[in-house]
Amino acid sequence: MDMPKQITIIGVGLIGGSFALGLKKQGCPTRIVGTGRDAGSLEKALHLGVIDAAELDLQKAIKDADVVVLAMPVGATEQVLRQIQPFIRPGCIITDVGSSKGVVVQAAHAVFGEVPPCLVPGHPIAGTEKSGVEAAFAELFENRRVILTPAQNADPKAVETVSQLWQCTGAKVSITSVEHHDEVLAATSHLPHMLAFALVDTLATMDDKAEIFQFAAGGFRDFTRIASSDAQMWHDICVTNGDAILAMLDRFTADLGLLRQAIEDKNSDYILEVFRRAKKARDQFCGQ
Amino acid sequence: MDMPKQITIIGVGLIGGSFALGLKKQGCPTRIVGTGRDAGSLEKALHLGVIDAAELDLQKAIKDADVVVLAMPVGATEQVLRQIQPFIRPGCIITDVGSSKGVVVQAAHAVFGEVPPCLVPGHPIAGTEKSGVEAAFAELFENRRVILTPAQNADPKAVETVSQLWQCTGAKVSITSVEHHDEVLAATSHLPHMLAFALVDTLATMDDKAEIFQFAAGGFRDFTRIASSDAQMWHDICVTNGDAILAMLDRFTADLGLLRQAIEDKNSDYILEVFRRAKKARDQFCGQ
Repeated sequence: MDMPKQITIIGVGLIGGSFALGLKKQGCPTRIVGTGRDAGSLEKALHLGVIDAAELDLQKAIKDADVVVLAMPVGATEQVLRQIQPFIRPGCIITDVGSSKGVVVQAAHAVFGEVPPCLVPGHPIAGTEKSGVEAAFAELFENRRVILTPAQNADPKAVETVSQLWQCTGAKVSITSVEHHDEVLAATSHLPHMLAFALVDTLATMDDKAEIFQFAAGGFRDFTRIASSDAQMWHDICVTNGDAILAMLDRFTADLGLLRQAIEDKNSDYILEVFRRAKKARDQFCGQ
Repeated sequence: MDMPKQITIIGVGLIGGSFALGLKKQGCPTRIVGTGRDAGSLEKALHLGVIDAAELDLQKAIKDADVVVLAMPVGATEQVLRQIQPFIRPGCIITDVGSSKGVVVQAAHAVFGEVPPCLVPGHPIAGTEKSGVEAAFAELFENRRVILTPAQNADPKAVETVSQLWQCTGAKVSITSVEHHDEVLAATSHLPHMLAFALVDTLATMDDKAEIFQFAAGGFRDFTRIASSDAQMWHDICVTNGDAILAMLDRFTADLGLLRQAIEDKNSDYILEVFRRAKKARDQFCGQ
């Protein structure tokens, strides 16, 4: 492919920064410009060598871009698309990294009246509970999946370019529909985050919370790691993928209710069946 | 203290085996005898150098023991106490490693008519999702907490001996009441396990489960690690600490219901408040 001469990343945090570092590690000659609202963070990104230039002025930052990557929290998508729309140059590809994709399509409709052919929504299935550019690292996407959800009218060349860039960072690219993405991610990522946040909050609001956390073991630490994730980012995901999350949450709550009843009834067969099926599924899919 | 000359471990798995290895690592000269129902597992323990002798006959295994450690699944406590009761020698200390302690007290009442002064219920707050003696390692309890829940009539020397043995493995020993232990552990360990098992089972029973797990990221892997734990052991904990687990589960479910409503209402203030409070609590108590 023709490697883009300039990529502009809006929001140089964990994901945007790691994307830039991943490309640089592969010797990708593309100039990477970072932009965003936080001057201190951009300066840090420049200082750390994550980006080649920092530009607070959004118009200046994107005017020569071949690819614009939206990497700020997904809730700001419509607002940012509206800001860049007047200045985006013809032929420029737009992509994003948000955990919910329906909202990106809605935002595009609101701003452009359609999903423009140059827009390729994307989502790297990778991350850590850390946030900010100082947490970024070049290997974050190696052997991880990136899901692209292009519309039917998408420019095949735009899809190909975005796909190649992600593969350049070591990721494996899949293409699926917006709806399917949002359902699957509600199940494997969004619901677990809700449960982890809710559990830690339940404990944090108990009277003897200091003692309770003191007696937490390694299993609790692993289980709740995702509750150390960025609150604003997860708020945005909650609000933008609410329907799919609520559907999964209701399904889970119903199953949890059955387990609750089995514990109350000391129904050993039911409890053992659930635990064994769960253990088998996890060992099989996640490795032991 | 006078180091016991012989310790007999009933159930040489992850916990019992790691206890033995921890003592050996510290050069503790105590002879460690392993017993249990599974001859193959005992032979493995002997072969791995975890125990000094394997003895399938429970009576023979305990007759010279200064300390007997019950390290089989907690649901078998009453049955095992009943089996050893006729053969336990005067002065022998009994302790256990179960995750619920009320059931140990109940079992003691059923078998001895009281909690005998030589019984010191205990619970090391450590473990992994693995099970079996091949998963045991000497450092499992280093800097981890062990909770002892002796009754008021407990022999102080017995409590001291059990405490010293655990400290010898590198653990920090706390003493609390049976009720308090069971409530705190329901919150920090038992409830998270229920949620992890229930979530994986919900996903495992969905039609497109293969694809769903395929798109699971590192956060999901961490969150569900405890769902790879031993099903029988967790069944036993569920059944033996049911009341405390149900109380925590109901508290959590109520909180989760409020979060669900906030997502449906797109109530950003509420969602952000929960997520921020949870993140702050986890960062504070678990480290970032």
